[in-house]
Amino acid sequence: MRNEAINRLIAAFRKLPGAGNKTAMRYAYSVLKMDEKDVQAFIEAIKNAKERIKLCSLCGNYTETEVCDICSKRDKTVICVVSEPKDILPFEKMGGFNGVYHVLHGALDFQKGVGADDIRIKELIDRLVGVKEVIIATNPDISGELTASYLANLIKPLGVKVSRLGYGLSIGSEIEYADALTLQRALQDRKEL
Amino acid sequence: MRNEAINRLIAAFRKLPGAGNKTAMRYAYSVLKMDEKDVQAFIEAIKNAKERIKLCSLCGNYTETEVCDICSKRDKTVICVVSEPKDILPFEKMGGFNGVYHVLHGALDFQKGVGADDIRIKELIDRLVGVKEVIIATNPDISGELTASYLANLIKPLGVKVSRLGYGLSIGSEIEYADALTLQRALQDRKEL
Repeated sequence: MRNEAINRLIAAFRKLPGAGNKTAMRYAYSVLKMDEKDVQAFIEAIKNAKERIKLCSLCGNYTETEVCDICSKRDKTVICVVSEPKDILPFEKMGGFNGVYHVLHGALDFQKGVGADDIRIKELIDRLVGVKEVIIATNPDISGELTASYLANLIKPLGVKVSRLGYGLSIGSEIEYADALTLQRALQDRKEL
Repeated sequence: MRNEAINRLIAAFRKLPGAGNKTAMRYAYSVLKMDEKDVQAFIEAIKNAKERIKLCSLCGNYTETEVCDICSKRDKTVICVVSEPKDILPFEKMGGFNGVYHVLHGALDFQKGVGADDIRIKELIDRLVGVKEVIIATNPDISGELTASYLANLIKPLGVKVSRLGYGLSIGSEIEYADALTLQRALQDRKEL
């Protein structure tokens, strides 16, 4: 009964993270019900974002300018290293952190074949001149911990202090969803590696 | 920190049913991470669906042809009336129903100002010549029940049998998510109105 065009639309929505078959179907049917104006706005928002948003040439976060707002205004002697751009949000929501970020765009995962050259580690090393501290805020899971140790071993010999978010993050959780309080605690109690 | 283009993209995803702020953010970031090819496929799937899919001139279900597959092949003397196109899916998944459908594209809701002229009731009446039975499968909620009584009062005087899905549907649930067994039971035990 369902036709090709609907199936393709459902398949497209299934590509969104966490969207199963029922959710994708629900989304597809809602798009079919939307009026033309809203569908155009939806498509435009996607196109516009993909066209205008690029990576900050310093930190690798999403930005519409060559260098992002954070890199151009804040204390460059403290760098907080995260896996993904979305991991920056809870820090900014928390407030009080005046350093800059570095987005790795991934984490080491040898089983999945993600090595040091596949994430933005070289770019981090290139930024270390004059830096006092690197705070590693990769996810508290196996891949994140591996990345943290790897970076510590690489950066400490260069005479830069390396710390890891401490207290408060529960193992297996994701930075992206950390609440401000937990994160503040984790930042205060960061451990030198 | 977040920029305009990302905010617009998040706002666009929030229009999807059931997508809250966190889900919309997750979707937006995943789109930014997608490669160009996948984004194009996503946009194409939406455009293609909106261009090619129209309403069947008989039943009002989504179709790519003038008359849908179901209307052109099946027993037109039994019509199952549903609120939305998506409500047809569980019936087809269940199998065994050989009649046709009629999609109202809504249900009566006087509080929200949805009256008889706002849904496809006239189109249903126009199809009743030669029809033996109308099975009403609107949702088992206030609006669905209201629509069912309204249709029964309208159709019974025309000498057509009108029934309502019976057993098995729990009050407040949605047809869209009915499992095959419950639905089969409800269809067997349908009550004449």
